[in-house]
Amino acid sequence: MTKAELLRQIKAKRSFLCVGLDTDINKIPPHLLDDEDPIFSFNKAIIEATEDLCVAYKPNIAFYECYGVKGWQSLQKTWAAIPKSCLSIADAKRGDIGNTSDMYAKAFFDESVSGLGFDALTIAPYMGNDSVTPFLQQEGKWAIVLALTSNVGGLDFQNFTNRDGVQLFEYVLEKVSSWGSTENTMFVVGATRGEGFLNVRKYAPDHFLLVPGVGAQGGSLADVCRYGMNASCGLLVNSTRGIIYASNGRDFAERAREEAVKLQQEMEIELEKAAII
Amino acid sequence: MTKAELLRQIKAKRSFLCVGLDTDINKIPPHLLDDEDPIFSFNKAIIEATEDLCVAYKPNIAFYECYGVKGWQSLQKTWAAIPKSCLSIADAKRGDIGNTSDMYAKAFFDESVSGLGFDALTIAPYMGNDSVTPFLQQEGKWAIVLALTSNVGGLDFQNFTNRDGVQLFEYVLEKVSSWGSTENTMFVVGATRGEGFLNVRKYAPDHFLLVPGVGAQGGSLADVCRYGMNASCGLLVNSTRGIIYASNGRDFAERAREEAVKLQQEMEIELEKAAII
Repeated sequence: MTKAELLRQIKAKRSFLCVGLDTDINKIPPHLLDDEDPIFSFNKAIIEATEDLCVAYKPNIAFYECYGVKGWQSLQKTWAAIPKSCLSIADAKRGDIGNTSDMYAKAFFDESVSGLGFDALTIAPYMGNDSVTPFLQQEGKWAIVLALTSNVGGLDFQNFTNRDGVQLFEYVLEKVSSWGSTENTMFVVGATRGEGFLNVRKYAPDHFLLVPGVGAQGGSLADVCRYGMNASCGLLVNSTRGIIYASNGRDFAERAREEAVKLQQEMEIELEKAAII
Repeated sequence: MTKAELLRQIKAKRSFLCVGLDTDINKIPPHLLDDEDPIFSFNKAIIEATEDLCVAYKPNIAFYECYGVKGWQSLQKTWAAIPKSCLSIADAKRGDIGNTSDMYAKAFFDESVSGLGFDALTIAPYMGNDSVTPFLQQEGKWAIVLALTSNVGGLDFQNFTNRDGVQLFEYVLEKVSSWGSTENTMFVVGATRGEGFLNVRKYAPDHFLLVPGVGAQGGSLADVCRYGMNASCGLLVNSTRGIIYASNGRDFAERAREEAVKLQQEMEIELEKAAII
């Protein structure tokens, strides 16, 4: 999906919501457990209940990989169930030397090889240029590079600061921006970082940012928009637990939809405030 | 596998060789392509030809993941074929927030959940403490954390330097060392970094280091030992392409063995020089 298509979807749906599909078999409604593939049954119902409200889905690969072959089958079916009108993001945080990153690009982008054709993959930047550039080679495919993450350990290394006062995450933004463009690179910036977005926008004013951490992790949508929105929206705000685990009963999909509606409505107001719609 | 067991294996085999199983279907001997699972056939033959000469095997997960479900099946069989007397390392370079890293720990360490029970997993440190500590919870399991990698892009971020002259990889060594112990943490240090090992050993004198980059990538075993060996050996030196692709013919396993023998013999001399055997 190109940047222009993504923006078109955002305007049409009046939403920049990404729904996280971190589906844990221990948290899904018990009545699904007799299904042949409970994780896929759950995901399919969540997708069907929310696809008009969000512009992206983001399965975290760990939640599939932990079930080995069976988990990989669930992932394949889940990817295939994501509508083509939504950006499909494999949240895998991969990163390796060049020839190995080529293999990861096949794993997540090339359906003819792996059975998976995601639009985007999250990438850990620690190994540098050749760990990122293999994901920037095809139009409509995206590398979403970790910059400033939402977790408690995020600042252990990300605010390591050089003698000019530049923090590691800022240097990552600056360097990685120079390897790709706003058409193939996004950055992960945690919603919990509030004013940190101002620093991020100094280095990446025009990039889309993937923003986890709203909801369960405590980030505020209003703050994210105040500090992070740009003229092309420039934000994909992810919510996982607040939506997919809104209920553990037979009404889980309807309750997920209700939670997605609440976020979509807040987002619509923000998009109007910014005169994007 | 505990550190004491690993050192026992090193002394018994007079080797600290790790064989990389980055098995590319486009590089294996053509006569294997008619097998039901050519990648596994290749790996099994390589393992049987080298298991008395090395102390570890390291499949790089990208080379399996790129074939989706089928690749995961090959990986499972490959892991099961690694003898228990060798350290089995999943070279996956994972790293995510705490609850997700828990899932990755299940994926690679917990056979009852995923079908895989590797001894060790490589980890990218960018996301900090909660991305590493979930892998330090079980005796005999190891987190092998990226410090100073062998690839061309390795220095894009790893030598980002703070106002006290400390480089990022040194700070990673210092911080991560404080989270675990020499019984559950190793570091990745590329063989191409030569005297960089002196800096590494300032921060991690007693840890085992996993050292890729000897052979195809140009690193020297003699240099690695000169600057990196400690009283408990402290090195696992990986070779992949030089061993597994020594021949593309029906003699591939014998030729792989010959290359492994050469490295084992060099390693035996180094272990004797250091009075470890």
